[in-house]
Amino acid sequence: MTKTLNIAMIGGGFMGKAHAMAYASMPMFFWPAPAIPHRKVVVDVTDELAEAARQRFGFDEASSDWREVIARDDIDVIDICTPNNVHAEIAIAAAKAGKHIICEKPLARGGEEAKAMLDAVEKAGVIHMVAFNYRRTPAVALAKKYIDEGRIGEILNFRGTYLQDWSADPDGPLSWRFQKKIAGSGTIGDIGTHVVDLAHYLVGPISAVSALTPTYIKSRPLQSGGVDKLGASEKNSGAPRGEVDVDDEVVSMLKFECGAIGSLEATRNGYGRNNFITLEIHGTKGSILFNYERRDELQVMFADDPADARGFRTVYTGPAHPYGEGLWPIPALGIGYSETKIIECYDFFNAIASGEQPSPSFADGYLTELVADALITSGETEQWVKVQSLTAADKRTAVPA
Amino acid sequence: MTKTLNIAMIGGGFMGKAHAMAYASMPMFFWPAPAIPHRKVVVDVTDELAEAARQRFGFDEASSDWREVIARDDIDVIDICTPNNVHAEIAIAAAKAGKHIICEKPLARGGEEAKAMLDAVEKAGVIHMVAFNYRRTPAVALAKKYIDEGRIGEILNFRGTYLQDWSADPDGPLSWRFQKKIAGSGTIGDIGTHVVDLAHYLVGPISAVSALTPTYIKSRPLQSGGVDKLGASEKNSGAPRGEVDVDDEVVSMLKFECGAIGSLEATRNGYGRNNFITLEIHGTKGSILFNYERRDELQVMFADDPADARGFRTVYTGPAHPYGEGLWPIPALGIGYSETKIIECYDFFNAIASGEQPSPSFADGYLTELVADALITSGETEQWVKVQSLTAADKRTAVPA
Amino acid sequence: MTKTLNIAMIGGGFMGKAHAMAYASMPMFFWPAPAIPHRKVVVDVTDELAEAARQRFGFDEASSDWREVIARDDIDVIDICTPNNVHAEIAIAAAKAGKHIICEKPLARGGEEAKAMLDAVEKAGVIHMVAFNYRRTPAVALAKKYIDEGRIGEILNFRGTYLQDWSADPDGPLSWRFQKKIAGSGTIGDIGTHVVDLAHYLVGPISAVSALTPTYIKSRPLQSGGVDKLGASEKNSGAPRGEVDVDDEVVSMLKFECGAIGSLEATRNGYGRNNFITLEIHGTKGSILFNYERRDELQVMFADDPADARGFRTVYTGPAHPYGEGLWPIPALGIGYSETKIIECYDFFNAIASGEQPSPSFADGYLTELVADALITSGETEQWVKVQSLTAADKRTAVPA
Amino acid sequence: MTKTLNIAMIGGGFMGKAHAMAYASMPMFFWPAPAIPHRKVVVDVTDELAEAARQRFGFDEASSDWREVIARDDIDVIDICTPNNVHAEIAIAAAKAGKHIICEKPLARGGEEAKAMLDAVEKAGVIHMVAFNYRRTPAVALAKKYIDEGRIGEILNFRGTYLQDWSADPDGPLSWRFQKKIAGSGTIGDIGTHVVDLAHYLVGPISAVSALTPTYIKSRPLQSGGVDKLGASEKNSGAPRGEVDVDDEVVSMLKFECGAIGSLEATRNGYGRNNFITLEIHGTKGSILFNYERRDELQVMFADDPADARGFRTVYTGPAHPYGEGLWPIPALGIGYSETKIIECYDFFNAIASGEQPSPSFADGYLTELVADALITSGETEQWVKVQSLTAADKRTAVPA
Repeated sequence: MTKTLNIAMIGGGFMGKAHAMAYASMPMFFWPAPAIPHRKVVVDVTDELAEAARQRFGFDEASSDWREVIARDDIDVIDICTPNNVHAEIAIAAAKAGKHIICEKPLARGGEEAKAMLDAVEKAGVIHMVAFNYRRTPAVALAKKYIDEGRIGEILNFRGTYLQDWSADPDGPLSWRFQKKIAGSGTIGDIGTHVVDLAHYLVGPISAVSALTPTYIKSRPLQSGGVDKLGASEKNSGAPRGEVDVDDEVVSMLKFECGAIGSLEATRNGYGRNNFITLEIHGTKGSILFNYERRDELQVMFADDPADARGFRTVYTGPAHPYGEGLWPIPALGIGYSETKIIECYDFFNAIASGEQPSPSFADGYLTELVADALITSGETEQWVKVQSLTAADKRTAVPA
Repeated sequence: MTKTLNIAMIGGGFMGKAHAMAYASMPMFFWPAPAIPHRKVVVDVTDELAEAARQRFGFDEASSDWREVIARDDIDVIDICTPNNVHAEIAIAAAKAGKHIICEKPLARGGEEAKAMLDAVEKAGVIHMVAFNYRRTPAVALAKKYIDEGRIGEILNFRGTYLQDWSADPDGPLSWRFQKKIAGSGTIGDIGTHVVDLAHYLVGPISAVSALTPTYIKSRPLQSGGVDKLGASEKNSGAPRGEVDVDDEVVSMLKFECGAIGSLEATRNGYGRNNFITLEIHGTKGSILFNYERRDELQVMFADDPADARGFRTVYTGPAHPYGEGLWPIPALGIGYSETKIIECYDFFNAIASGEQPSPSFADGYLTELVADALITSGETEQWVKVQSLTAADKRTAVPA
Repeated sequence: MTKTLNIAMIGGGFMGKAHAMAYASMPMFFWPAPAIPHRKVVVDVTDELAEAARQRFGFDEASSDWREVIARDDIDVIDICTPNNVHAEIAIAAAKAGKHIICEKPLARGGEEAKAMLDAVEKAGVIHMVAFNYRRTPAVALAKKYIDEGRIGEILNFRGTYLQDWSADPDGPLSWRFQKKIAGSGTIGDIGTHVVDLAHYLVGPISAVSALTPTYIKSRPLQSGGVDKLGASEKNSGAPRGEVDVDDEVVSMLKFECGAIGSLEATRNGYGRNNFITLEIHGTKGSILFNYERRDELQVMFADDPADARGFRTVYTGPAHPYGEGLWPIPALGIGYSETKIIECYDFFNAIASGEQPSPSFADGYLTELVADALITSGETEQWVKVQSLTAADKRTAVPA
Repeated sequence: MTKTLNIAMIGGGFMGKAHAMAYASMPMFFWPAPAIPHRKVVVDVTDELAEAARQRFGFDEASSDWREVIARDDIDVIDICTPNNVHAEIAIAAAKAGKHIICEKPLARGGEEAKAMLDAVEKAGVIHMVAFNYRRTPAVALAKKYIDEGRIGEILNFRGTYLQDWSADPDGPLSWRFQKKIAGSGTIGDIGTHVVDLAHYLVGPISAVSALTPTYIKSRPLQSGGVDKLGASEKNSGAPRGEVDVDDEVVSMLKFECGAIGSLEATRNGYGRNNFITLEIHGTKGSILFNYERRDELQVMFADDPADARGFRTVYTGPAHPYGEGLWPIPALGIGYSETKIIECYDFFNAIASGEQPSPSFADGYLTELVADALITSGETEQWVKVQSLTAADKRTAVPA
């Protein structure tokens, strides 16, 4: 019989919403489900916020004390939806308590923290996963399938972008995402790591980077309350301002272990771009294009198509593609953010049920942090920076290249 | 305090999945919710199917007797997710029992049935809604806003399409969607009515139609079990075949009461089209384009833009647009089929909470059936056919033109 | 040795420019050229205009008397670039004088005139061609190739549009294009016939039509001088106004002799559309899409592609496609209006050199006029109207269906 | 009265065709023309080739001795359409003879040669221009207009690409474009310099670069005859092979003098890309997108548009935009490669007529060569490389930043 697993979710903001929706919906999509997620406890920073989250997100209980919750015997899974600065502390405690862990991205504020987290989960033998949901987009999974099957040959060049404009206005508030002590970095950690994760997933480990990492807007209005509303935040040009000490943008070149080269560009100041995650991958036998803003589609070109009918095919993902059996019965009924999170949830519970680490594990998240560290260092030194390699031990739960 | 309403959902297939997900998720998105949907009973044709649906979709109880369920005092809402042929019987019974009703589209197998349903709900004084979810796409709601604000002027021309290819293969099975006695019509009812609903929503009532309604594939393999898997169905060229007695396609011209003209095209045989719902609307001051396959986007052109910067704007919907407060904090994080159903659920429960009929009500659904009837008749006679007008009484719960 | 043919071009406006450019350039592209066009005489309505055209377009001589020019022995080809109302008179005179003729589209102001022109050229035994240049777009010629090779199977549905907005402003001037006595019809003749020509080229003869043909703007400012500047014309809201007695738009349904159905929509009042000629063709084995505004591209979908890589291919035309040997050595270097006219010129001179009628001949142009007549009649009667068939004699120079 | 200028064109290949077409057509488009180009002499490497070019391209005379032609008194303009290795020798001789010069891009095989050429033309006081035609695309000129008018604010980031696939096949022939001694470099000079020119035009001088410049295909089949057919060339896998000693691709980061950063990527091995020249420019008040494969369009986003109608506008260039008066009377009739060359010709003859240097002059071409040199050096050293600055003297004829 399908097992039910009790979840304690730490953090009841935007990400909490997405995760709670996925817990409720996953078995409806992927049935029989590998396990049934049960929304047991939600934790937020005050009792009031926690109680509000409980009602909204359909949990049994509310708490403002995550340590206490982690200590409970009836909790199977810890879900970390907090700002980056407490990921490590919570994850390490959860690992010690023998809980399976899903942690929002980026895994940590840098490689050092991530390594401690990895060591903790490895030692505890629990299942661990980082919530890089974009690789769960069926079109991205289809790209992976084409690549693994050799249908575009050896990869020569990878181009990844993540362009947004929600912080292009200098009067957007100084949320935690602009503060190094909480976020670790700016665009690099917030959105650049998504691209790094996609690069690792599709091409393999990045071995060296060269980057520019400007901060365009040096100060922003202080925020009362600290709520993080991203693109929905109000502008307040009259408020006192605090310093921004993270990058607004990263423009970079990449080298991969497999010999491919490429580039990564991420910004939150690119007017007109909303959630513009794109991939362009050139291989020796074809190419792949992806644009998350049109995420139902994958474009693929096969070089051996007949000369008079050669060009990018626009494939709308559906029943014939990865995860198709659980989603909608016709392509383009529509993949939204919800569906990416439902698939993520499915893969995570599959991993728990099977006992096999999912990808991206904390090892993958750690490697991504090492790339982020290298990007930061390169931005400071304006030199190529090698990415530290994972040890054999670290790699035990990393995704195969 | 927010009220909880008990739902009995009749039908546990593809649409049941979508509705159940919406019940679970709606309050997470739109909080405080107007009311909390509680998944009380799910009904399917056998006890076994009902029990499977109960587990999968998170209902308290399962039943194979919808009459018994409707009779219960503890049920507030009846949700009709069955094939078209039993919509009327269930809805009329539910109305008599004083239940609020949401019914999947099309409302009925034609105007006559729909009229009986409308009369029943009007008499009962319950809240009623037809699940034409595509008008809930935020980009479509934004189009409505532009039009209502006069930003594209008077409408001259409406072009709506719904093109699919899931039944283009002659060996796709003879599901209920190809049988007149169950479905009422083919493409017209199944997908054409979505376009009619969008036309009514954005332009106002259609007053006359002229149509061609070919059936390209006259027979299809009989299906054992009758399951309706749409694009995921298996081909079976060796099976015995049964007659298709509905239209595969409708190509038509439209006249609107407001004086605009237009066209409607729907097919399930247009290879390469998946869920290609498009709108092109020309007004005296601008134009609007929409393509559901790229549903995060609305395109709008304002004629009074400066000559050197005039052209369609591609607007990605987000916090600044309709329903934005409840969805995701950045445009293009992604609207999927799930989100359209969550919004639909929100509008329905808003209506119940406020006591004001939502749109599209059964009156709107009835008007859409009258247009469908006119399309069928025109396809047979190859003449312009006037759409029967709603009476003043019918119009009480119709959407204002 | 390559023959040189002397051209007399009647009309020195926008179309004269396009033709003169093609005469000068064609042999540079298609070399060895089938014949060398020599710009001998240009004719315009006054000596001054003719002399200006001579200098501008590089002709040897100027004249304001087309009859005199046609009578000359040293003229091989008459090129008719005038408004529609004098096409017939000039063409018939030219045929009688034994000249080869290329005539701008539409061939005439209706079927009757066109028939007289056809009879004249048939009797004279000269080469004749109508300048429907859009079918010369390499991507359209590629679509023709796919269809002829059976690669999309039997055609079920054809959708053609030609949407513009240059006359959407009520203060755009009353050029000859809005006057029935000169133009014959409005949108139908001006741009709708292009779509009819494309339909005939790709699908075969249209057998019946049903249309709506509204005139949105009933009067326009009178123009001094009568110059036709299309989108570059100045607005003059203060000027006295004259009546518009032609259609601003045509929305229609089509039946084809081969059994396919379809639709044709043309407007000059669709804000945001510039030269939006589109084709969507569904066949039993695939589909084709074309959008002239992105004319380097043809989209094609083959139903028998593998399920996981099925979708429209975006083919950029180049050396591997029709006319590729004469154009640019890389796809997407760019096809412009110029290139379509250069190809047209090439096909016309090929026909003269080979003695085989090109397509579209006057017979094709006559058939297109019969469809235009049927559209006008249907717009008046709101009934399906059969298109008069060509006689066997008429068909001698028509394009094979 | 309009002056006629005699042209001697050196080189009768693909570029000769484009230039000859422009000479014939320019006055037809831009009338009254600033001067009338007269096709006097065409030069090719043998008398036979020259005579063929004379006939094909409509020149009065043919020659295989460019030195002799340059010495003639009746030649006003030297047009250099040869491979890169003889640009300098011809241009310097032409300058000494007092001829105006238009030279195909790239100006030279590197900065040193370009500097000698610049010195020669400066000393001679003639008009000089480099044929970077893509900046003549009306949509690019419109981008320039927006930027100059401050409509997108200060530029933060420039992204330029030029992706092709015509040499992705290892069996494509070893044309001169793969030989350093003739071409100077590979992708960098051939297509990368187009992007550098666009960057200089729109953003201003590049001050430093960091690049990767791989050669993927180390040898190619030797070609008999040395004809350069680009995408139309035949594959010959059995032929003896020669070494490729230039780059197949350049991936790079840029710094601009104005403070902006950016990236440049060019490849001839990107399967599925044909002539994919794209620009993405982020400013403090908006953004601009351009894709040459859809060159009738410019996309622009203004940050101060109202929140509910903010997004990229797709502007089709026409009469209301740069060069519109000379081109076609409706947007999207179509800009092709021809039109870009006609505009280039117009600007060049305008410069001769007015006596004011056009842009890009040889000074601009020299600066572009310096960037190319820096890209090559950086590709070798994997370090940031500063671009050598122009001296005040050099800048006299450079485009203002």
